[in-house]
Amino acid sequence: MSSLRRLPGIGPKQAERLALHLLRAPASETETLGAAMREARARVRACSVCLDYTEGDTCRLCSDPGRDRSLVCVVEQPTDVAAVERSRSFGGLYHVLHGRLAPLHGAGPEALRTPELEARLKGGGVTEVILATDSDTEGEATALWLAELLKPYPVRLTRLAQGVPLGGHLDYLDEQTVSCAVKARRDYGGGR
Amino acid sequence: MSSLRRLPGIGPKQAERLALHLLRAPASETETLGAAMREARARVRACSVCLDYTEGDTCRLCSDPGRDRSLVCVVEQPTDVAAVERSRSFGGLYHVLHGRLAPLHGAGPEALRTPELEARLKGGGVTEVILATDSDTEGEATALWLAELLKPYPVRLTRLAQGVPLGGHLDYLDEQTVSCAVKARRDYGGGR
Repeated sequence: MSSLRRLPGIGPKQAERLALHLLRAPASETETLGAAMREARARVRACSVCLDYTEGDTCRLCSDPGRDRSLVCVVEQPTDVAAVERSRSFGGLYHVLHGRLAPLHGAGPEALRTPELEARLKGGGVTEVILATDSDTEGEATALWLAELLKPYPVRLTRLAQGVPLGGHLDYLDEQTVSCAVKARRDYGGGR
Repeated sequence: MSSLRRLPGIGPKQAERLALHLLRAPASETETLGAAMREARARVRACSVCLDYTEGDTCRLCSDPGRDRSLVCVVEQPTDVAAVERSRSFGGLYHVLHGRLAPLHGAGPEALRTPELEARLKGGGVTEVILATDSDTEGEATALWLAELLKPYPVRLTRLAQGVPLGGHLDYLDEQTVSCAVKARRDYGGGR
């Protein structure tokens, strides 16, 4: 039960419920689950290009000849790759940092998979790096630090636009977001 | 009690609770509340410039000589004026539409206080109109319709930036917001 409790999002109550279920279920069920976990663990590895999880040597996206290799979108976690892919707005490749700067939790630059990113940039062919870390304090700090790290490379550095989210009501947004949206306002199909 | 139920956010239970309170409380309390409501209703009116609520002829912002009169931020409701003011990012004046296009609820262009806005633009001196309606379907439709309406005037039309809200995690954002943020990405203090 203490192993179950170490899973993310599993509290003591839920761990107890899971443990009881596993004890009551037929032994074969526990066996199947254990085998599936062991197999996944053995088969899934980091893509040799972008470090996203994959079963092969390179992931589905990195081996797709249709993707634009000159564009690299840098994200914190594999789930962020999925989020950008769902938006169908990006045709380049990714780089997964597998972390973020979080000094208060003891995560310094060594927690980020940046050597692999620098190696890609040294390899040439990349013209733009999009720093798509989260928009909270630690994500912003990570983006700033990355911008500094990547300055020597001849690539354009960009960051996701900040502003009002779709469906957003002015009245419910925090001051910083409104401030950001006012300052970054854009021209809108009008006269002159 | 049926009058109480017509207030926004007051359901049958809450109306009953309020009605019982008013019956049990000393008569003077009910009198004070009634008088306050009547007085507020009599004293508060629409600012003759921006239509925001005010007690004088023009509101505090419109009578402030320090505000930039060439910039007009068009919002749906008086609460939106407060939201933009809290952000301390805007030094111009406002125009309150007191509504939005909502065809499904029978609110067409006649529901919007646009004649007053057009009169302001005809008066001259305005160089930029920021369409700061909400970022949901009806707010976007209102902005589009306004852009069309204001096309004949020699002013720059802008719209609040859309993108990731501050503190936003990529993983929790909807696809359209991520798509918008990727497309509108901006240069970020980097090399070349």
